[in-house]
Amino acid sequence: MTEPAFPRLALIGIGLIGSSISHAARRAHAAGHIAIHSRTPATLARAEALGLGDSYHADPADAVRDADAVILCIPVGASGAAAAAIAPALKPGAIVSDVGSVKASVVAQVAPHLPAFVHFVPAHPVAGTEYSGPDAGFAALFDNRWCILTPPPGTDAEAVERLHDFWRRLGANVEVMTPEHHDLVLAITSHVPHLIAYNIVGTAAHLETVTQSEVMKFSAGGFRDFTRIAASDPTMWRDVFLNNREAVLEMLGRFTEDLAALQRNIRYGEGDALFELFTRTRAIRRGIIAAGQETDAPDFGRPHGSGEDAPG
Amino acid sequence: MTEPAFPRLALIGIGLIGSSISHAARRAHAAGHIAIHSRTPATLARAEALGLGDSYHADPADAVRDADAVILCIPVGASGAAAAAIAPALKPGAIVSDVGSVKASVVAQVAPHLPAFVHFVPAHPVAGTEYSGPDAGFAALFDNRWCILTPPPGTDAEAVERLHDFWRRLGANVEVMTPEHHDLVLAITSHVPHLIAYNIVGTAAHLETVTQSEVMKFSAGGFRDFTRIAASDPTMWRDVFLNNREAVLEMLGRFTEDLAALQRNIRYGEGDALFELFTRTRAIRRGIIAAGQETDAPDFGRPHGSGEDAPG
Repeated sequence: MTEPAFPRLALIGIGLIGSSISHAARRAHAAGHIAIHSRTPATLARAEALGLGDSYHADPADAVRDADAVILCIPVGASGAAAAAIAPALKPGAIVSDVGSVKASVVAQVAPHLPAFVHFVPAHPVAGTEYSGPDAGFAALFDNRWCILTPPPGTDAEAVERLHDFWRRLGANVEVMTPEHHDLVLAITSHVPHLIAYNIVGTAAHLETVTQSEVMKFSAGGFRDFTRIAASDPTMWRDVFLNNREAVLEMLGRFTEDLAALQRNIRYGEGDALFELFTRTRAIRRGIIAAGQETDAPDFGRPHGSGEDAPG
Repeated sequence: MTEPAFPRLALIGIGLIGSSISHAARRAHAAGHIAIHSRTPATLARAEALGLGDSYHADPADAVRDADAVILCIPVGASGAAAAAIAPALKPGAIVSDVGSVKASVVAQVAPHLPAFVHFVPAHPVAGTEYSGPDAGFAALFDNRWCILTPPPGTDAEAVERLHDFWRRLGANVEVMTPEHHDLVLAITSHVPHLIAYNIVGTAAHLETVTQSEVMKFSAGGFRDFTRIAASDPTMWRDVFLNNREAVLEMLGRFTEDLAALQRNIRYGEGDALFELFTRTRAIRRGIIAAGQETDAPDFGRPHGSGEDAPG
């Protein structure tokens, strides 16, 4: 058996991502002792019932004591308070990381609280499902997905290398970039897509001419795919938009500008312009399938057959 | 064995929907002889190689001769020309139907060409995948999905009942409404979702600050779900937007109005408003799962595991 990347790992927060790290770390023998903290007693009890850790701590400082690596697995808006709470108990040389979907704001919130003798290496595994909570995690969540590291300038190279190795062992590919560039990339590949999904589901819920029952019954024409995205954790996503405001507003501006042009194409019956766009977008999807980030099974690999995809 | 709903069925067009009707009709013994026409010789040859029909016809008039039911399975923009081509060969008492995603425009295009001695019952099975062509069809596509019939006032009740029975035997649930109401419902549940999916994929392809390679690599955060929708058939979708202009522009207006409000929420840091919307949208998804229109498997039931969802 290989040596664990971290003899003692602390997970601060144990939702979808935290519990998936636990499963994946155990599958890969990437961590020795796993110490878990949740500020919600019921969640901590559930994590214990699921056996996700080796010790469970109501106080985050207790969870991080003696830990070689600490990963914040919480909504980004809670990062600063969590960093303040764990800082006094951190071990010299420990690696502190996170999994937040926004990076510049997390750096600004967390870095000021940390002692100089720890290594801060922010991270973002680009993976998830529409489910949340400690029951939602599974070991394969990060397989063949990308984990982006955004170490501040001057971060200890060995610490970056150790976290890189940890994520590789969890199944992920690893890329390094600046927090600012990360936030722009994710604004277009994740944040704005979530925003427009939430928005159209909200629009559909408030029409006078079409009932909610009709929206649900006839959702297989495309709408249902948006509802998956719009079922993601509300706290996490509120924090994403509040903490990546500038990049989201910039990308949203581009989106609405393009949408206005498309609206004009429809109003004036410009079929060639529509056809040209609808053809071009297929190439992007082929690229995503080729990059291994999507299955090419039809209909997202949804099961087909009268019984299989009935409600469970 | 039960009697077929239609001793002789003609399919005008043999793409995803036409070929799925063939598979589903055979599974259910819902049609006797299946006559197939495609205006593209290669598609007709492919349909024959796949054994999708019992006879194959380069001339649509030949395909519909003696048919008890004729279903146009073509982009809605081609409906008028197809109706004109088949009209002289239709058998008295035949049912003429279609599968178009827009109904008022199809009624306006098709009805004037049809002789008084046939029954015109427009239909729209709300089902599909991102694939197109005769190879894309499968028998279970319509299982537990809805097929909407929009018979004009005064349509023969027995003809509506026979088409209703046919779609039930293909696995679908059937609902009847006016063409105008259909077009409003589908504008919000299908047409506008497709439009914004095409739009964001287009936006992402033209950024200066984020590369296409980055968009593809980090698409698992939400973007990839939009690319599936934006990979749908360009001709079909061009025709949908050109032929359902008013309803699409109306629903798009609601969408952009709501999006502007959300943009303000983000700009001014109004977290409570974001949280409230993000919570409300979850209820709609629960309704869709309860209505049997979506699986509740995480991540759309995408396979998880390092090998399984690698590129095929």
